[in-house]
Amino acid sequence: MTSNQNDPAASARGSQLASDFTVSLHYDRRLYREDIAGSIAHARMLARQEIMSAESVASIVEGLQSIESEIAAGDFPWRDDLEDIHMNIEARLFDLIGDAAGELHTARSRNDQVSTDTRLYSKGAALELVGAVRAAQEALLQQAEAHMQTVVPGYTHMQRGQPVSLAHHLLAYFEMLDRDAVRFSAAAAAADVSTLGSGAMAGVPYPVDRQSVADELGLDRITANSMDAVSDRDFALDLIYAASVCMLHLSRLSEELIIWSSNEFGFVKLGDGYTSGSSMMPQKRNPDFAELTRGKSGRVVGNLMAAMTTLKGLPLTYNRDLQEDKEGLFDSVDTMLAALGVVRGMIESATFNADKMRYAAESSYVLATDVADYLVGKGMPFREAHIIVSNLSEQAANSGKYLHELSLAEYQAASELFDEAVFDITVDSSIAARDVEGGTALNRVTEALAAAKARLVASRHDK
Amino acid sequence: MTSNQNDPAASARGSQLASDFTVSLHYDRRLYREDIAGSIAHARMLARQEIMSAESVASIVEGLQSIESEIAAGDFPWRDDLEDIHMNIEARLFDLIGDAAGELHTARSRNDQVSTDTRLYSKGAALELVGAVRAAQEALLQQAEAHMQTVVPGYTHMQRGQPVSLAHHLLAYFEMLDRDAVRFSAAAAAADVSTLGSGAMAGVPYPVDRQSVADELGLDRITANSMDAVSDRDFALDLIYAASVCMLHLSRLSEELIIWSSNEFGFVKLGDGYTSGSSMMPQKRNPDFAELTRGKSGRVVGNLMAAMTTLKGLPLTYNRDLQEDKEGLFDSVDTMLAALGVVRGMIESATFNADKMRYAAESSYVLATDVADYLVGKGMPFREAHIIVSNLSEQAANSGKYLHELSLAEYQAASELFDEAVFDITVDSSIAARDVEGGTALNRVTEALAAAKARLVASRHDK
Amino acid sequence: MTSNQNDPAASARGSQLASDFTVSLHYDRRLYREDIAGSIAHARMLARQEIMSAESVASIVEGLQSIESEIAAGDFPWRDDLEDIHMNIEARLFDLIGDAAGELHTARSRNDQVSTDTRLYSKGAALELVGAVRAAQEALLQQAEAHMQTVVPGYTHMQRGQPVSLAHHLLAYFEMLDRDAVRFSAAAAAADVSTLGSGAMAGVPYPVDRQSVADELGLDRITANSMDAVSDRDFALDLIYAASVCMLHLSRLSEELIIWSSNEFGFVKLGDGYTSGSSMMPQKRNPDFAELTRGKSGRVVGNLMAAMTTLKGLPLTYNRDLQEDKEGLFDSVDTMLAALGVVRGMIESATFNADKMRYAAESSYVLATDVADYLVGKGMPFREAHIIVSNLSEQAANSGKYLHELSLAEYQAASELFDEAVFDITVDSSIAARDVEGGTALNRVTEALAAAKARLVASRHDK
Amino acid sequence: MTSNQNDPAASARGSQLASDFTVSLHYDRRLYREDIAGSIAHARMLARQEIMSAESVASIVEGLQSIESEIAAGDFPWRDDLEDIHMNIEARLFDLIGDAAGELHTARSRNDQVSTDTRLYSKGAALELVGAVRAAQEALLQQAEAHMQTVVPGYTHMQRGQPVSLAHHLLAYFEMLDRDAVRFSAAAAAADVSTLGSGAMAGVPYPVDRQSVADELGLDRITANSMDAVSDRDFALDLIYAASVCMLHLSRLSEELIIWSSNEFGFVKLGDGYTSGSSMMPQKRNPDFAELTRGKSGRVVGNLMAAMTTLKGLPLTYNRDLQEDKEGLFDSVDTMLAALGVVRGMIESATFNADKMRYAAESSYVLATDVADYLVGKGMPFREAHIIVSNLSEQAANSGKYLHELSLAEYQAASELFDEAVFDITVDSSIAARDVEGGTALNRVTEALAAAKARLVASRHDK
Repeated sequence: MTSNQNDPAASARGSQLASDFTVSLHYDRRLYREDIAGSIAHARMLARQEIMSAESVASIVEGLQSIESEIAAGDFPWRDDLEDIHMNIEARLFDLIGDAAGELHTARSRNDQVSTDTRLYSKGAALELVGAVRAAQEALLQQAEAHMQTVVPGYTHMQRGQPVSLAHHLLAYFEMLDRDAVRFSAAAAAADVSTLGSGAMAGVPYPVDRQSVADELGLDRITANSMDAVSDRDFALDLIYAASVCMLHLSRLSEELIIWSSNEFGFVKLGDGYTSGSSMMPQKRNPDFAELTRGKSGRVVGNLMAAMTTLKGLPLTYNRDLQEDKEGLFDSVDTMLAALGVVRGMIESATFNADKMRYAAESSYVLATDVADYLVGKGMPFREAHIIVSNLSEQAANSGKYLHELSLAEYQAASELFDEAVFDITVDSSIAARDVEGGTALNRVTEALAAAKARLVASRHDK
Repeated sequence: MTSNQNDPAASARGSQLASDFTVSLHYDRRLYREDIAGSIAHARMLARQEIMSAESVASIVEGLQSIESEIAAGDFPWRDDLEDIHMNIEARLFDLIGDAAGELHTARSRNDQVSTDTRLYSKGAALELVGAVRAAQEALLQQAEAHMQTVVPGYTHMQRGQPVSLAHHLLAYFEMLDRDAVRFSAAAAAADVSTLGSGAMAGVPYPVDRQSVADELGLDRITANSMDAVSDRDFALDLIYAASVCMLHLSRLSEELIIWSSNEFGFVKLGDGYTSGSSMMPQKRNPDFAELTRGKSGRVVGNLMAAMTTLKGLPLTYNRDLQEDKEGLFDSVDTMLAALGVVRGMIESATFNADKMRYAAESSYVLATDVADYLVGKGMPFREAHIIVSNLSEQAANSGKYLHELSLAEYQAASELFDEAVFDITVDSSIAARDVEGGTALNRVTEALAAAKARLVASRHDK
Repeated sequence: MTSNQNDPAASARGSQLASDFTVSLHYDRRLYREDIAGSIAHARMLARQEIMSAESVASIVEGLQSIESEIAAGDFPWRDDLEDIHMNIEARLFDLIGDAAGELHTARSRNDQVSTDTRLYSKGAALELVGAVRAAQEALLQQAEAHMQTVVPGYTHMQRGQPVSLAHHLLAYFEMLDRDAVRFSAAAAAADVSTLGSGAMAGVPYPVDRQSVADELGLDRITANSMDAVSDRDFALDLIYAASVCMLHLSRLSEELIIWSSNEFGFVKLGDGYTSGSSMMPQKRNPDFAELTRGKSGRVVGNLMAAMTTLKGLPLTYNRDLQEDKEGLFDSVDTMLAALGVVRGMIESATFNADKMRYAAESSYVLATDVADYLVGKGMPFREAHIIVSNLSEQAANSGKYLHELSLAEYQAASELFDEAVFDITVDSSIAARDVEGGTALNRVTEALAAAKARLVASRHDK
Repeated sequence: MTSNQNDPAASARGSQLASDFTVSLHYDRRLYREDIAGSIAHARMLARQEIMSAESVASIVEGLQSIESEIAAGDFPWRDDLEDIHMNIEARLFDLIGDAAGELHTARSRNDQVSTDTRLYSKGAALELVGAVRAAQEALLQQAEAHMQTVVPGYTHMQRGQPVSLAHHLLAYFEMLDRDAVRFSAAAAAADVSTLGSGAMAGVPYPVDRQSVADELGLDRITANSMDAVSDRDFALDLIYAASVCMLHLSRLSEELIIWSSNEFGFVKLGDGYTSGSSMMPQKRNPDFAELTRGKSGRVVGNLMAAMTTLKGLPLTYNRDLQEDKEGLFDSVDTMLAALGVVRGMIESATFNADKMRYAAESSYVLATDVADYLVGKGMPFREAHIIVSNLSEQAANSGKYLHELSLAEYQAASELFDEAVFDITVDSSIAARDVEGGTALNRVTEALAAAKARLVASRHDK
């Protein structure tokens, strides 16, 4: 057997690398509140179950509360030689209360401890994100309310398709965000479970009361299988996934704000706090925040891919690979919260140029389908009406006109069914005609707005 | 203005490329049932609303039913020059019933039609996947029931950690699959909504009854915003995501089956239908199906990333990019269904080698914590007990023994608290001691098994 | 030991699933040419080395050539019960020449056979892609040559920044594609190696001449380690990666074509073969091909992530997971080839609207930096010049003018350094001033065009 | 026009969010050396071209050198209100030298500045990674040299397949790393280009000497198109991709080290610096570093996905999305460097258990193919030999023996061609028989080792 295991140089290198490779303190220190809450709940339960003495528990709880204060105040003596938040708190607790600190190991392992800490964090973060989504929806709602009668071209393939109410357009994003709130809520529910009592993986050999710990932590339930409990990271995937989809939605909204901010479109002017520009070029308003929001969708999607790749093919139960669960989770939550705040602010600060939007809607052939529908309404078969309007449109285009610029004579040359009423076909009448649930007619958008408001109100009561 | 737009060579090339690039018939033809159901429901509603004549509807419904029979029977005259399933059905309907076929365009656009088709498919697929998950859980349950008292080492870091019941180990996967069923159900609910009536994007200018169409299609509700309706693909993401996580779970299970199938472990022998081998090497049992299950997790995760990348940064509303939503969705569903069937079969066909497992559990120091707990139970502080057992273990290891091979004298030399009862510490007593909800003690696993069974029964009633 | 391994239902299910799960014939049949070439080269070498008789080799070669003809002619009797292309060819060879077919197994394993087949395919595909890239570059070059003096606003943040030559803008994409060609060439080189002789993993126990087989197959070299040879799929990753980056480039170009096709920009009109529209809306030209090109970038990126996920964590050597290497590879190559053809055709067929572009460039403050540079040229410190021009711009904007619409008096009120020459500052003078390597001045773009042409010519000679 | 743009609350929120959202100082400060080097080279060129006065340049260079010293010494007055490293350096330069600092803006924009900084970083990082790869290869080489004659089972499907030399197995990873070095070198070459002189996007209106700046920075060449130059991030993708593949290789090696460290395999004992354990369980050696290496492959693959998603669909030229290029790049480089160091240390510190490996190789039917080859060597057709050995193996297995434990009589009962020489078939003879380039025979591995060493030596001279 060849051995260079005791090569001191190799060992030294190993030790040094450890400080780069295994250390998580720089990111997991933010779990301090969750870690301390978990330890206190665990200790109190041990006392209730008479596994630990009342004195020990009192000492532990007091010590942990001091530590929480120290950290919150910025006075905590962080030790970089201790690689994570848990070791730091534990070591400090020994400093403060002595050997009683060691009793916290009773009926608990690092595996179930870390897992519950991360679930507490995830639940809290997911609920905070629901709130941020609601705030962004509120901003959309306010702009929608202000723009019920603002006309904008609706686009397919980036081509003007049909005129719609700007409110209707904005409420499309309200719907996307509504689904995001559902996903974030589901992620909160997925995390709302205590693993404490699972030990390293097989359960603990003490008569613990797991549900009471969960209750004290405000967690809904306890895990059903200890081996799954310490190796499951689905709740983190669920949260990063929900954030990925929400970021994709925001990337779509940002894309529109960017294009609408171009000189060519000129549909929107974002608030000064959300653009940068050049004092020498007064019209240049770089939508940096929208661009970063769009760009940062990559970061969150990347975090999802990272977590999935890490989990692929891992055998049961705890493997150190799982330590990689947190950094991408934290980054996703931070990015998501910031992006939702930015989007809210951009929407709130946006000034829409109703004149340009209406002009764009009118400078097109988007009314052609309405003209065809007019003929169908007069009894003409759909196909025939389509052919007549196609010819009319071509004829108008050839003479540099839009449909509504044709004369009645020109209309009637195409079909005797046309009369003066054809001039009643306007972007406004076109909008009014889409009088169907979910359609852009004013009464429908009014209904949709009311329903959206009601959902926001209900969501506040849900909490 | 320079123009080479009319270059016939370029146009010809364009036409030819079209057949490679825009065609979706080879994969979307599987939506024929959904497409026909959607069209029939739409036509019937048009009749109820008196938008279409009863004769037209009767003719359309009869034609579509013929087409469905033709496709099901393999007799449909597919036309590759028509790029998708919708055009094929439409053209065939013209052949069968003539111009009335064109009336199907009334109050419907390709955008809301395709969207509802895909939702119908997704809902059905998600529910089918719930069933496949339940079947795989059933297989785990049966093996768990047969192996309540089979002892296997529980591993952390691929190192033997604590002895557990094989049933407990298998039920960890039951839990993972349970969460998968929740996610697939959520994906079904996300797809359970009709977009018909949204038109191209703004709603349709006819007095349609959207909810009645949804009802006829067995869909739960209707979309609230037409612009969102035609551009939303969240439901597809939700389903591919659910499949990605489930595939990751199966990759973990497969990894274990592969490692346990190795000569070195020898814990499991998979059924002949799930391995390949060499007649010259009787011990070689290549776990090909487990490897493919593990490997195919990549495919589904890749489909998720593909769909997310495609959606990133798209403005409203419909863009042709969205055509890319289906192929990865279908592939994910097919792969997932097959993988769940394979896993079910592998588990059903597996023969676990209880002797090797128990031997592995016993040939280790996994009982050390139980010995320490024994001392703690006698009143020794945890830390002191830890030191004593560490020393005992080291001493045993140095003489090539495991802890249970030490003599009472050797134990007592370490601490007078030891008595004959120390020999009652066995892998079985260790397992029995983890008597906590979710723990591996027999009574707890029995409870867990009963709860798992109850959940499966309840899930059957949910449908 | 509990056993349900012989449960016939489970076995039957296994057999049936096998046909869904392990079968690769539907996609690997396209490797038939590579597989036959590899077998012929292998057989001939065995004869040269006197490992196989000349008669056997003659019979094998003749049989394989017949099979190749049968497949090419569509006459091959495919057997779905044989799961891959290799088994199909092998079984057919037995039909045609009898037991001598079995001798092909001498000194070869399925592992090195499949690996070499896939490398042959990858090399060929990568070189074909280099050609397709060059053709797309050629199209860019032609349009650039036609638009040397066409002025278009250069954008940052989708805001007009500085006027540039359209040729310069188009050549930016030439550069991207040039890097793609480098990556595809590197992928071809990575695949240009024969693994034959590696056997199942340890090498073959016959005196084979590996390099001569490589030579006959037109492969550059042989692998250096048999265990790596059968488990390495880097060459496939390299090719999918190169395609991913190229697709991202095309997604950027497509995005611009889509935006430029909008009514608001109106900078480009794509050929009829590359758009769809509505006969009723003459201005609507949906850029479907550009949208699909953009959307399909997701597919290729997804294939890369799929392959990476599959490879993660696999131990040596061959594992069945590796079978998953091919479908995503084929799909990436097919998509890439089609997309490059589409982009080439779109560019060739594009008509740029020089008037609109120039108008857009002139209707802005993009000349402000040139005005400031003018002052600096007259000796004013940069910072002071900046302030003066900012004030001028603001003043102009407030009166609804652009800078070049100010009077000399207005200029001189701001600084006495202004004289008539300030009116020489135009989009054309601005372009001319960027007279630096890689800049947009006409002489520089002329140089760049010549260099680009020279590179295309050189690339043709490289082959 | 509705406006709430001047809502102070919204503005305030915007300002505050800016500090979370647009700030990059916390990660881009590490570019300070590259930024200062770029500025100095730029300033000196301006002096050479007589665009800037010698005094200004002297002052600027001196100021920048002071700043570099301050930062290196930890004395730099960082300002968090300035969002990036460039603004911090610029502001400090104003403090130190006054208005002359402003002249650095001459003929340079933030766009070309940042781009060159990042390329300088990428080139340096890629070259450093080549070195780290070489060091890891060196460690593999040393262990290979020590284990030329150590026998280990070669695995396919995690099943023992054929005996190989451990050196041969280790050299498989040498080959993977060799390809990684090629990819890192290609990434260095891709970054080895100066963009300075591209300005904001169109080139600069000054007679700069771009190549001389590149020369001073040690960059190989200059970019050919200014619009591409400021928006291209291929070099970053290339580097993250190279790291992703290398991490996948390390994940495979780590997987093997983890499995080989299990009690069941027991093939390797990693150095104490690379494992953690339990003092109570002497045999438990958790391979934490190998697990983290495997797990961190997800992080780097995720960074690749993030960057690709961010780049998808961006129009020309600079968009703020591109700011997202750096954090994932830095993280990938840091992770990769650390992982290569860890792998090097793990390999150096590893003790392989030759006895267990040989025992595992011998306790199997891996010699069956050699026995069949023996019969073929005596003139028996391959197929017949296969059948006879299959029967022999089955017969042996049924009596609990391996092939080499059969008696000569038993052999001869199967075929008269067997004689005493059949007992010469051993794992050693099997290895010796794979005497082909890239095979596991000792002479071939010796050649491979020499070639590998030569490559390492040559790589040192390349630098």
